Amino acid sequence: MSLKNVYLYWDDVRTLKRELEPQGLQLRDVLGGKGAGLMLMTNAGLPVPPGLTIPTHVCNQYFREGERLPPGLWDDVKAAISELEQRTQKRFGDCTNPLLVAVRSGAKYSLPGMLDTALNLGMNDAIAHALARQTGNPWFAWDAYRRFVMMFGNVVMGVDRSRFEACLEERKAHLGIEKDTEVPAEDMQQVVTAQKHVYQQELGHPLPTSGEEQLMAAVEAVFRSWNNERAIAFRNKDRIPHNIGTAVNIQTMVFGNMGWDSGTGVAFTRDPADGSKRLTGDFLPNAQGEDVVGGVRKSVPLFMIRGLAHLSSDDRARYDSLPRDRRREIDLALEPITARLLPGWVRVADEFDAVASRLEGFFHNTQDIEFTVERGTLWILQTRNAKRTGVAGVKIAVDMVDEGLVSIEQALLQVEAETLPHLLVAQLDPADRLAHRNDLLATATGASPGVGAGKIVFTSGEAQAATRENHRRLERGEPIERVLLVRQETSPDDIAGMQVSQGILTVTGGMASHAAVVGRQMGKPVVVGCGDLLLDEAQGQLFLQGRVFRRGDVLTIDGATGEVYGADVRTVPSEVAQVLQGTLPGTQCGTWPYYQRFMAWVEQRRLLQVRANADRPDTAREGLIRGARGIGLCRTEHLFFQHDRLEDFQTMILAETQAERTRAAEVLRSHQRQDFREILEIMDGKPVIIRLLDPPLHEFLPKEDEHWDSLSRRVGKPVEDLRRIARQLYEQNPMLGHRGCRLGITFPEIYRMQARAIFEAAADLKQRGLDPQPEVMIPLVSVPAELEQTAREVRAVADQVFASVDGIRYQLGTMIEVPRACLVAADIAPLADFFSFGTNDLTQCTFAFSRDDVEAKFLPDYLRRGVLQVNPFVVLDRCGVGRLIEMALREGRAANPRLEVGLCGQHGGDPQSIQICHDLGMDYISCDPPLVPVALLAAAQAQIRRPR
Amino acid sequence: MSLKNVYLYWDDVRTLKRELEPQGLQLRDVLGGKGAGLMLMTNAGLPVPPGLTIPTHVCNQYFREGERLPPGLWDDVKAAISELEQRTQKRFGDCTNPLLVAVRSGAKYSLPGMLDTALNLGMNDAIAHALARQTGNPWFAWDAYRRFVMMFGNVVMGVDRSRFEACLEERKAHLGIEKDTEVPAEDMQQVVTAQKHVYQQELGHPLPTSGEEQLMAAVEAVFRSWNNERAIAFRNKDRIPHNIGTAVNIQTMVFGNMGWDSGTGVAFTRDPADGSKRLTGDFLPNAQGEDVVGGVRKSVPLFMIRGLAHLSSDDRARYDSLPRDRRREIDLALEPITARLLPGWVRVADEFDAVASRLEGFFHNTQDIEFTVERGTLWILQTRNAKRTGVAGVKIAVDMVDEGLVSIEQALLQVEAETLPHLLVAQLDPADRLAHRNDLLATATGASPGVGAGKIVFTSGEAQAATRENHRRLERGEPIERVLLVRQETSPDDIAGMQVSQGILTVTGGMASHAAVVGRQMGKPVVVGCGDLLLDEAQGQLFLQGRVFRRGDVLTIDGATGEVYGADVRTVPSEVAQVLQGTLPGTQCGTWPYYQRFMAWVEQRRLLQVRANADRPDTAREGLIRGARGIGLCRTEHLFFQHDRLEDFQTMILAETQAERTRAAEVLRSHQRQDFREILEIMDGKPVIIRLLDPPLHEFLPKEDEHWDSLSRRVGKPVEDLRRIARQLYEQNPMLGHRGCRLGITFPEIYRMQARAIFEAAADLKQRGLDPQPEVMIPLVSVPAELEQTAREVRAVADQVFASVDGIRYQLGTMIEVPRACLVAADIAPLADFFSFGTNDLTQCTFAFSRDDVEAKFLPDYLRRGVLQVNPFVVLDRCGVGRLIEMALREGRAANPRLEVGLCGQHGGDPQSIQICHDLGMDYISCDPPLVPVALLAAAQAQIRRPR
Repeated sequence: MSLKNVYLYWDDVRTLKRELEPQGLQLRDVLGGKGAGLMLMTNAGLPVPPGLTIPTHVCNQYFREGERLPPGLWDDVKAAISELEQRTQKRFGDCTNPLLVAVRSGAKYSLPGMLDTALNLGMNDAIAHALARQTGNPWFAWDAYRRFVMMFGNVVMGVDRSRFEACLEERKAHLGIEKDTEVPAEDMQQVVTAQKHVYQQELGHPLPTSGEEQLMAAVEAVFRSWNNERAIAFRNKDRIPHNIGTAVNIQTMVFGNMGWDSGTGVAFTRDPADGSKRLTGDFLPNAQGEDVVGGVRKSVPLFMIRGLAHLSSDDRARYDSLPRDRRREIDLALEPITARLLPGWVRVADEFDAVASRLEGFFHNTQDIEFTVERGTLWILQTRNAKRTGVAGVKIAVDMVDEGLVSIEQALLQVEAETLPHLLVAQLDPADRLAHRNDLLATATGASPGVGAGKIVFTSGEAQAATRENHRRLERGEPIERVLLVRQETSPDDIAGMQVSQGILTVTGGMASHAAVVGRQMGKPVVVGCGDLLLDEAQGQLFLQGRVFRRGDVLTIDGATGEVYGADVRTVPSEVAQVLQGTLPGTQCGTWPYYQRFMAWVEQRRLLQVRANADRPDTAREGLIRGARGIGLCRTEHLFFQHDRLEDFQTMILAETQAERTRAAEVLRSHQRQDFREILEIMDGKPVIIRLLDPPLHEFLPKEDEHWDSLSRRVGKPVEDLRRIARQLYEQNPMLGHRGCRLGITFPEIYRMQARAIFEAAADLKQRGLDPQPEVMIPLVSVPAELEQTAREVRAVADQVFASVDGIRYQLGTMIEVPRACLVAADIAPLADFFSFGTNDLTQCTFAFSRDDVEAKFLPDYLRRGVLQVNPFVVLDRCGVGRLIEMALREGRAANPRLEVGLCGQHGGDPQSIQICHDLGMDYISCDPPLVPVALLAAAQAQIRRPR
Repeated sequence: MSLKNVYLYWDDVRTLKRELEPQGLQLRDVLGGKGAGLMLMTNAGLPVPPGLTIPTHVCNQYFREGERLPPGLWDDVKAAISELEQRTQKRFGDCTNPLLVAVRSGAKYSLPGMLDTALNLGMNDAIAHALARQTGNPWFAWDAYRRFVMMFGNVVMGVDRSRFEACLEERKAHLGIEKDTEVPAEDMQQVVTAQKHVYQQELGHPLPTSGEEQLMAAVEAVFRSWNNERAIAFRNKDRIPHNIGTAVNIQTMVFGNMGWDSGTGVAFTRDPADGSKRLTGDFLPNAQGEDVVGGVRKSVPLFMIRGLAHLSSDDRARYDSLPRDRRREIDLALEPITARLLPGWVRVADEFDAVASRLEGFFHNTQDIEFTVERGTLWILQTRNAKRTGVAGVKIAVDMVDEGLVSIEQALLQVEAETLPHLLVAQLDPADRLAHRNDLLATATGASPGVGAGKIVFTSGEAQAATRENHRRLERGEPIERVLLVRQETSPDDIAGMQVSQGILTVTGGMASHAAVVGRQMGKPVVVGCGDLLLDEAQGQLFLQGRVFRRGDVLTIDGATGEVYGADVRTVPSEVAQVLQGTLPGTQCGTWPYYQRFMAWVEQRRLLQVRANADRPDTAREGLIRGARGIGLCRTEHLFFQHDRLEDFQTMILAETQAERTRAAEVLRSHQRQDFREILEIMDGKPVIIRLLDPPLHEFLPKEDEHWDSLSRRVGKPVEDLRRIARQLYEQNPMLGHRGCRLGITFPEIYRMQARAIFEAAADLKQRGLDPQPEVMIPLVSVPAELEQTAREVRAVADQVFASVDGIRYQLGTMIEVPRACLVAADIAPLADFFSFGTNDLTQCTFAFSRDDVEAKFLPDYLRRGVLQVNPFVVLDRCGVGRLIEMALREGRAANPRLEVGLCGQHGGDPQSIQICHDLGMDYISCDPPLVPVALLAAAQAQIRRPR
């Protein structure tokens, strides 16, 4: 069944759905979100202006054919317009009862404000005169014409908008008038004439008068807008595929600006900020939609359309709680609505309540509705599921279950998993954020949620120095000074500094850069890829948006939105997080009961176990209170960056003999044992997967001269000698070099030391009556013998350490992160208790993509050109990497039925990837502590969507 | 059927073979080459001293159990010794008729001289006296004892050999005697006493007198020797697996030193140097085998054992042709063989002729035989297939077919494919090589066969300067001066210099290093990994073996053997190569008819097509004359290193705008068109796969300041600007970075330029009546859209260029070198005419091995520890990489049945890998021009072994 070029809103939606189903398509795949909603509403008998949809596949065809409208399309559109004329009893170009239409984009996923829209198509001089006559409102007719010329000239033809706006402004200045509504109709007519002149001047041809011609140009413009830079950037940010195209809606115009019995607005069926069950939204009488969206005029709260006299007591209280200025603004805006008009508005309001409630029932979800009132008649222009905060999402989900509106499964599915961390991190105080809107200097990539504000430091050393100074301040009873680390990009050298900073801001990098990965691990707010930022570290200053900031100036970053403020913006802490940490009683947190019930539902439905990636006691604890059932990845090397251990580690790296190396390893062992003891104690009774040393040794070497000097004194060898040894460690492609188990095999004393530290820590806890469950993980195995040889060493250490301690169970497994490991999984599995897929490296090797290089160099280009639909480091590549995982999992389990299988790459926190892990039959996933709730919910959603 | 711990030579060999067959084992897998040969010969009734073999699996078990003899082994050995005593009618430790045995290693593959051997075990004072009595030859008895003490003390117990030798030398000095044979028996007895004293002194315990104790120690020593450094190095060099272990042979001693009716020698059934059908070898009367191998005494040619009087006329002529000194040496050595003894020797010689001929018939191959004559009785100690030169191999194969001794298939299988290039490259003149043996300074890794001699230059620039100077010399009629490039390691910067040098010698690097890969491509002799060489480029000198060489001094390298001579060693050119090049008539080359027939047989039997990897007209021609049926890989980037084009290319790389880049690309296009025209013309009517730009751009940037200055003048931008742009090109893991089709997508003008150059060259030739067959290859595809988008561009160019030219067929395909490409091959195949597996990169990504880093850092260690059996960059990894290839091939062909499939990595020249390609069902392989004959023969052998 091939798809049509045009669908009418009143086509039978059930028939269409039946046609699409065998092709695996949903309504919104074909019609876009807007078109699907309008068709569903029309079919349900809701008041929708009649219209039609050109589906998404036509847009794709448009681009495939080199930006040309597909043959046959226009005949189909014209036929549909005829039907539209019949249904509306209006006619395109007819002076008695003219049909005017709006042309709007509508992709599968919402791209608010990114794509183009043109209104009032079908307009020309004759029609404007007719409209003036017909409505008895010449101002309205000429104002509509003015808007048409401007939008058509600007949006469709690309003329600078200000050129048209100037025509109105000049006229207003000439008349000494401020408000558009006060411009006399004849002057508005002159504005239109002036605008048409501009049009002719700029484009070299007169404004087309034929509605059909206007329509064709507008449809093309909407198609083209799919690939404008804003839209591409937005899709990249929101991980929306680039190849799905947009649908185009051609819809009968309705006018909210036909007088004070008309108006327009947007509404949410529940409060998208806190989830309260009340209609929320904004409304503007005698206005078109663009006036509301564009903020040209001050709108009023939706509940006020009944007028002050007819408010419920609740709404009256809401009105009373508003600041006085705001109340005056509202009163002023509603003034033109006379007592005569008010009953009509109350009727509209009641009707809207009913429509809103029907829509919620219909879509089983909170709705975000656009509507227009034309001379007392309510029209619904669009409805879609409302975006909401994590707090609102959880509350609404629980409420809707209690109201019997949705099942628990539906409730779990309606919350976007990614919004859950919002409940658990500090937020910018909304009022203070508004107050600082002029300090918003950049919106880069938010890589780890949370808000961080602090004095700028440029190096890890400065951050640590500030911390030491803070210790002194604390002793003296002085307030401490928080710092924010700003770097070109971070490296392992910076870890100690990152740990003590309020947040990290980097000029380069993406979601998978070092700062992003480590920051998420630490639960720190991180903003990366702030390309506008110019860093002059030497002078201790940075430049952003023409402003200069010096060391010690304060910045605030929002790691959820990527916003960077050049000021100290107030934050509000998360109450739920405080309850989880035990610092606030659950009874004092309004959201807590909702969160608790919601997460209990999640827990009952998920099949995948969720663990946390945590390298330190504090992050382990973070994971635990968020619901992690163990540690899926503890990277031992991160421990070396703590407490001046780096030099001990460097001493080991630069050892020239096995004896030197063993001696240095011994020094490190006591540190490591202490770390492991703490983590195992926190995770008592739960599995803790500890990965033995993984990165190439040269990553740990000093970068700065002073560090070399200090190291030289410590080791007792000249700097030149150390540098010479270091040079031998240099690698052309370190990612593919001497690291992971390759180090474990060539320098067995390192793994031996680490294994001993782990097992001694476990033995210690066991003797204290605890139940430690260490699981040792060997990284980077590509040949079974690598695991065999390293495992033999580790087991020998375990046998020694546990000789005198009873009943410690430990597991020994391997990270599957090299393609070859997947290919020979059947030979590896019998040697392992578990497989943990390290999908970061596996993705790198499978694609031959060096993560850092690729994200900096060509990945953005690839996404823009549609070579890739998503960044494979963010969303697991099902057909390439996923296929390797599938093979390894199937063949590994066949060879070792006891094998436990999980994933510990960055994909463990991504809902789409979690669905894949669920579908593939994994036992667990592991993710950074802040993302544990995301993973839990995504796991439950996966099981609801496709039960296993 | 489990394997036994011990096998006797007279066990029924057919029964054993039947037992092994179902386990997929061959006799030599279990018994080693030596043991298998001895058992076969014993079973065939040939005169072999009775003995037994401890099979290879026992050696492996020995290492698995931490270097301990497996339990039960010794009981089995003792039982076997009893049977040996019965058969020989001698007894271990018996003074009447003592049994003495030799303990010798014997692995599946020959490791000549690498593993340990101990002789005369069972010896002690009483036995020596008995032996003296029994033989009536006390000197022999004490000499045998002396040898035993020395070998046992040195080989088995690890005492320095010279400590024992000193005892004899002192005695000889004391007596004023030079020859061992002249030392009186009593003095020899004293030497033994002195040696036993040394033994006690060094080891703290007396020499064991029990034969069993001696035997046990010797067996362990042989096992241990499997993992000594020499053996490991040899296995690495010859790509022998490390985990197959060695067998141990315990064999009744026979003595060649019992008098002048005894002797020992080695023989080849045909001449291993030139393939002549005559017994060749060396013989030494009244001596033990070690005297021959060790070169202690001067041996005589085997044919001389009949004595001068009984020589055939041929042999007489051979004798007469020897230099006078050599003739005198021989006469002297044979002097003690009296007229009385001579008839015995003639009988032995006749017997040996018969045995040799039986062995050839038995093994269907030229044999390398060790034998001993004990008091007129001939004993065969070992036989194995003879190593021979390429020339000999081909001649013998053809002769044996003509003689009806082997089938053509057997003849093709008996030639080692790797030896064929020897027929086609210059060789060191044997006599001059001998004359310069003291100038042999190092034996490193021979990476590309051929001999190169020239004056040392240290940089590519010097090499090029020398070439310019040579041009001037030529004009002046002066002799030119050849140069040899010596570098720490080479980089793309050096290519122009490599091209004009006689050979390349590098300090670092392995078979897959830049110098090796590029050198093979160019057909230049290359020796790499010469770690003993110390380079002082600044001072223009190098140090090797305590000698200093300055710029301009002459070195000679042999790229087949890895030898480095500190002198100008004379070479002899290959006659076959001259015939192929048309510079010598085939009738004037003795080997030519053999080569021609042999290669014709190869041609009839191979299924795989063989192409050459060639980037330049001259190498393309090299490939063609060696039998290549097309070019499988022409790397366009190598063309940029020619004729000062590098700066043009650098200009393109450093372009900041598309316009600049397009302009620079235009300059390059005419160069490229010229190159492609030449190559396509040479390969007229044959496919030429041209790969579009592949390496990361920064690989092409200047390294030296002067180059930056020159480039700055050319481009007209300040050096700082250029360096800034260059810095942006830096990548952490270039192998996985912005390269291949990723460049083609982000900078489409580069691929467009290259495609245009290719198609214009083809159009040009077509118009001249030729039949160009260009095939454009897109590298590094991992996502189908990459191929789709780049292919669209290329096809658009083809459509333009070919608009006015009829009938040019071109193909468009992709390199499959990223694991993901294999996984989504079904989606890529419909877009491609061919797949060419780039197994170098595919191996890198599949293993996560960076070739250069890995070979320098841990691969040697991995081979030594048995983590890997072979270097996967040399031999294709069947179970990992091969599995990906298998998937891609199967699924690609299913999606596109017309798909042509080949391989163009380094593996294309490796016989083992070629067998895999054949088995997988590929259509062709491509390799470096010098290796084309190797690939052809390997392809034929593959088809003979497993017909497809």
